[in-house]
Amino acid sequence: MDFSFQLKKEDSETGARLGLIDAPHGEVSTPVFMPVGTQATVKAMSSEELIEIGAEIILANTYHLYLRPGHERIRALGGLHRFMHWDRPVLTDSGGYQVYSLCNLRDMREDGVLFRSHLDGTKHLLTPELSIEVQRALGSDIAVTLDEVIPNPADYDDAASAMQRSVRWAGRCRDAMKAGSGALFAVVQGGTWPALRAECAEALVDVGFDGYTLGGLCVGEEKAVTFEIIAETVKHLPTGSPRYLMGMGTPADIVEAVGLGVDMFDCVMPTRNARNGTLFTPTGSISIKNARFADDADPIDPDCGCYTCRHYSRAYLRHLYLAREILSSRLNTIHNIHFYVDLIRRIRAAVEAGEYARFRGRFLAAWQKEKREPAKAIA
Amino acid sequence: MDFSFQLKKEDSETGARLGLIDAPHGEVSTPVFMPVGTQATVKAMSSEELIEIGAEIILANTYHLYLRPGHERIRALGGLHRFMHWDRPVLTDSGGYQVYSLCNLRDMREDGVLFRSHLDGTKHLLTPELSIEVQRALGSDIAVTLDEVIPNPADYDDAASAMQRSVRWAGRCRDAMKAGSGALFAVVQGGTWPALRAECAEALVDVGFDGYTLGGLCVGEEKAVTFEIIAETVKHLPTGSPRYLMGMGTPADIVEAVGLGVDMFDCVMPTRNARNGTLFTPTGSISIKNARFADDADPIDPDCGCYTCRHYSRAYLRHLYLAREILSSRLNTIHNIHFYVDLIRRIRAAVEAGEYARFRGRFLAAWQKEKREPAKAIA
Repeated sequence: MDFSFQLKKEDSETGARLGLIDAPHGEVSTPVFMPVGTQATVKAMSSEELIEIGAEIILANTYHLYLRPGHERIRALGGLHRFMHWDRPVLTDSGGYQVYSLCNLRDMREDGVLFRSHLDGTKHLLTPELSIEVQRALGSDIAVTLDEVIPNPADYDDAASAMQRSVRWAGRCRDAMKAGSGALFAVVQGGTWPALRAECAEALVDVGFDGYTLGGLCVGEEKAVTFEIIAETVKHLPTGSPRYLMGMGTPADIVEAVGLGVDMFDCVMPTRNARNGTLFTPTGSISIKNARFADDADPIDPDCGCYTCRHYSRAYLRHLYLAREILSSRLNTIHNIHFYVDLIRRIRAAVEAGEYARFRGRFLAAWQKEKREPAKAIA
Repeated sequence: MDFSFQLKKEDSETGARLGLIDAPHGEVSTPVFMPVGTQATVKAMSSEELIEIGAEIILANTYHLYLRPGHERIRALGGLHRFMHWDRPVLTDSGGYQVYSLCNLRDMREDGVLFRSHLDGTKHLLTPELSIEVQRALGSDIAVTLDEVIPNPADYDDAASAMQRSVRWAGRCRDAMKAGSGALFAVVQGGTWPALRAECAEALVDVGFDGYTLGGLCVGEEKAVTFEIIAETVKHLPTGSPRYLMGMGTPADIVEAVGLGVDMFDCVMPTRNARNGTLFTPTGSISIKNARFADDADPIDPDCGCYTCRHYSRAYLRHLYLAREILSSRLNTIHNIHFYVDLIRRIRAAVEAGEYARFRGRFLAAWQKEKREPAKAIA
């Protein structure tokens, strides 16, 4: 297995950690934020821009690439890295969440989930084995096990049954991976029941995976519940393995979750918000279409070092947004991804300095000056 | 006047020329192709990308910027160059053509043209003086006189009357420019009547301008007529001034027009076609959405040195186009503008080598292997 994780440091006051992933396509320091490249492109970005910003790893969506252009096609073209001209690590999800969120017709069975494509209505059966086959065809550095996603709220029995199936499917994914290279992360499910989360985590750790993913969170539950479940789950995960919280979240969410011991994040929020003209600043987010920016010669954030803030005024960004220009999405996305990547840099520095609790307090106090963003946005 | 044009070479067999423009924001070799930056951005491109491709000058549209974000706003923000982060020369048009093509309600009067904004229906009077004021506020390197645009076909009397008014307006533009820096090009009108074109050119040359623009062409007339009018008009223009053919055209059109003595071109075709998935190659254009490219690992053109052709396959470009990804517009636009800029480089080299007639013959023979593009596309 050409994958390893070294735990470099644990914070004494919080759960925050520093680590280093070594994956087939390179090293990734943790904590890390993974920009989302749903359809073999991080929306509006070139690979060179992502590298200039400092992105170390991106996420790609198995569901989308399986349907279009097709994993066998990508395999024949040399794999996802070559296809999209990205030579750093890629994490792929299992496709389970997109089947759950994008497909109206689904039939959850023991062998897998039967669904109709949101693109053309064709019928497909996504099994644990197919999910792994697709992720292997893409050439993913880190694959994720297929899980059964359930609605929130769900009652205990439904959550338990979906969790148990997710464990069985994780085992099938483990078997399907055997011959291959790259890592496999298992998804911890169990809804909002700490006991189910603990049972799931322990069952998965018994099988043994390269990392553990916290799934089924931020699907409508209270934020306090989310953080409680994270804290409870992490207790049952091995210290020496990376922990990945799927699809979360706001900058404040990430700062909180790092303090609970989470190492890896992905979220469409920076890219999607950018295209909607919502830009991150240390005190919260601003809407660039606001008339107050019409004559504003300052950059989005005078202290930001991103390409957009170095060269363009709020007035110009507002103009591009109102004129629906493609450059609007580009410049806004550069700034927002830079904000997330730079936040991660500051988080790492604070953990390194043994000051994470103070950093977290200061960040959240500044952030709460402006209204928080909605909790989650999903590809 | 901080503007000059030096004629460097005249071809012995054709009308092709080499020249050098010295403008406030830098030098521009001619022949030259100017990418169109309608709304203070060349659609989908960053300035750095344009510079890497080799663009030396861009065009911006007075009409669009006057309405949004407003020329006074751009002036207050330091001018168009600073606003859009572009430090090379900019040519601005007069706004007349957009009023003609975009506004349903127009009233052509001697003082100017009264129109309703295509954005919000507000009423505006575009006079020669206002056109110059807007172009000056933007900080244009090369301004263009306001002319009266007429439909095609137009009868002789209408064409004559519009031509005479265009000459009067050009004089008013000349007067309005007096205090300023940068160049002023006058537009030669006269429909499809060589005699009117000659009369217009001579009247404008009597007033004296820094360059001469061929307007009112490619508006539905036969291509043979277009080239005849170009050839007839050029005879009446001074050898020592640059000649700019507005809004034209296909690669083949440019090759022909250079042979008739035209120095400057702009057209939305490379950028607009790119967004529609139509890509230029030496043998004509291809539609990247075509199923035959689904598994094609080759670049658009194996002999092309652009960023897109260096890193991406036709299969990937087809995928991005079908998935409606922003990167599709970016990569396609880079290739198409590169195609035009590289064509201009090859044109210059052929004139330099005294082989333009042969170059033209070879280019047109290769190009005509595939169907020609429609003649014109306008911002």
